[in-house]
Amino acid sequence: MATNLQEYSHKRLNMLTGEWVLVSPHRAKRPWQGQHEEVSKEKRPSYDENCYLCATNTRINGEINPAYTDVFVFTNDFAALQKESPSFEVEEGLFKAKSETGICKVICFSPDHSQSLADMEVEDIQKVVHVWQREYLSLGQNEEINYVQIFENKGAVMGCSNPHPHGQIWSQSSLPNEVEKKDREQRNYFKNHNSSLLVDYLAQEIAAKERVIFENEDFLVLTPFWAIWPFEVMIAPKKAQRDISEMKASEANNFAEAIAVVTRAYDQLFQTSFPYTSGIHQAPTNGDKNEYWHWHMSFYPPLLRSATVKKFMVGYELFGSPQRDITPEIAAQRLKEFV
Amino acid sequence: MATNLQEYSHKRLNMLTGEWVLVSPHRAKRPWQGQHEEVSKEKRPSYDENCYLCATNTRINGEINPAYTDVFVFTNDFAALQKESPSFEVEEGLFKAKSETGICKVICFSPDHSQSLADMEVEDIQKVVHVWQREYLSLGQNEEINYVQIFENKGAVMGCSNPHPHGQIWSQSSLPNEVEKKDREQRNYFKNHNSSLLVDYLAQEIAAKERVIFENEDFLVLTPFWAIWPFEVMIAPKKAQRDISEMKASEANNFAEAIAVVTRAYDQLFQTSFPYTSGIHQAPTNGDKNEYWHWHMSFYPPLLRSATVKKFMVGYELFGSPQRDITPEIAAQRLKEFV
Ligand SMILES: O=P(O)(O)O[C@H]1O[C@H](CO)[C@@H](O)[C@H](O)[C@H]1O
Ligand SMILES: O=P(O)(O)O[C@H]1O[C@H](CO)[C@@H](O)[C@H](O)[C@H]1O
Repeated sequence: MATNLQEYSHKRLNMLTGEWVLVSPHRAKRPWQGQHEEVSKEKRPSYDENCYLCATNTRINGEINPAYTDVFVFTNDFAALQKESPSFEVEEGLFKAKSETGICKVICFSPDHSQSLADMEVEDIQKVVHVWQREYLSLGQNEEINYVQIFENKGAVMGCSNPHPHGQIWSQSSLPNEVEKKDREQRNYFKNHNSSLLVDYLAQEIAAKERVIFENEDFLVLTPFWAIWPFEVMIAPKKAQRDISEMKASEANNFAEAIAVVTRAYDQLFQTSFPYTSGIHQAPTNGDKNEYWHWHMSFYPPLLRSATVKKFMVGYELFGSPQRDITPEIAAQRLKEFV
Repeated sequence: MATNLQEYSHKRLNMLTGEWVLVSPHRAKRPWQGQHEEVSKEKRPSYDENCYLCATNTRINGEINPAYTDVFVFTNDFAALQKESPSFEVEEGLFKAKSETGICKVICFSPDHSQSLADMEVEDIQKVVHVWQREYLSLGQNEEINYVQIFENKGAVMGCSNPHPHGQIWSQSSLPNEVEKKDREQRNYFKNHNSSLLVDYLAQEIAAKERVIFENEDFLVLTPFWAIWPFEVMIAPKKAQRDISEMKASEANNFAEAIAVVTRAYDQLFQTSFPYTSGIHQAPTNGDKNEYWHWHMSFYPPLLRSATVKKFMVGYELFGSPQRDITPEIAAQRLKEFV
């Protein structure tokens, strides 16, 4: 890669969203006098009687969790989207609003309160992947569900209110903003090139090598050229695949391996249980062909320099564009040491 | 406002960006078991010998601050954008990048280390406004500067690394993402209606009343219909104005009053020095007429329920759309109590 990109301020275009990120490589030298995050040193027990996600415990609404032994899914007790709310529309001049319905679920990855994906065996992560596949299909079959967002918030600093290993699914009738952007860019590219944007992109990354962290037969793990977060990572299937339900068992196993590799490298990088938000973007379940969609999982971790110094997406980032200091190429190199 | 909007999940369209926000009013009842922010109880002294922004102290690069008595501006010692970097472009298949140059400045609002805008007199805030006007004009005169972003990160939780009252200006050659969106939506509206989007919007808000927090002769203070952050506030001139340099002295005084009203109400709401990111969006300095632009200042504060519980913009928000629980109408009512 041209040394210019490692030396001078520039912007890079995210081909999936059509938006730019500002990169300031020289700024990594800036001293930090701001906030330090707390690192939880506490070793968690395998079972916590006060955890509302542990097996056999009672949740706030009075329901009792079953004595589950691997993955456990239930409908979110404080769902941001509800299935039975009325349909309405507001269109008064410049006030525009629309009702939105949906189904929100919580997925416990393991009955073991002390674990995280990084601690779990690949075969246990594969069970989580299997549940994601099942939920994507069954939620998507609902007439009124057109998009299924699978995600995980890990760590208190990422707004996670319970350390028990778990993720969420918010599924809904319309396409959220970020999905709209990727839908548009992938559709346009497919129309113009008659090939998938991400398949072409991954081929280019394999050739360039410098951002690739890991690969197995079916998956590539890399820091995208246009990554926003300091140690952002993308996992994507090498062959065209619209959504996770298309994965065969052997592919699901290789996907689980890729997740294990990423989360373990993260934990080793700063010797801490690495906080992040991860999510899967995939084809809408709106009944369209969506052949231009290529699914991928992204990890957005906030840590920048150490277990306690994170990147703040504030002032310029909120009013202008996302901004990063360390380049994606350097981030990939550092993560690769732990693969 | 229709009670539906206070009861059921819906999305609202931000007319300035063309993007949606998901509103889940019923979710405000959710219990919070997650992270609590630290509240700094320390009373700061008026002068701190270790502060690199206090008058007469030495900065990291060896420069000595003057014995300034009101507002003091200098070029950022760790600027994300630099004036003298080389010009280059990368266009290799799906890798697209462009050099970006600019000028970054720091503005100390007061020599008094213990103050914030909320503590300052209106006439002292007016001096800050005056410097913003001057900097907007002089930076904008540079051939290679086409946009001037004025902002403030306040509070450690907003990534502010020094409590001394200060803001920043990042000015640059291209338009950042958020500005691009507002440029496009305002331009389209002006073309279709031959009037300013924000002037029409403000008239509608004055008639609706329920989101208006304060007004004086020249300015309206409100929670926008499409606000993202729990207590987000916008200050906008009632009459069409492209940028802050168009304000007369009497208007600058009324703008300073509006800033005082907002920041003081914030501090009273949760009895804490309220953290936020604020910024001014205004016409680009690219030499175009930009007659469709209407400048406005926005405050994005993260606190949700108390001085220690904030809203996290994570999983669903990063992969899907911004999401809020408390409605903008309720937020306006609560802030109005402190005006
Ligand atoms: O420039 P500062 O105050 O050191 O840094 C702060 O503001 C910048 C501009 O919003 C952000 O990029 C940084 O993440 C934040 O910590
Ligand atoms: O649903 P939870 O875990 O209670 O809440 C967390 O994730 C949600 C979805 O990303 C966010 O809206 C909340 O701000 C965050 O605290």
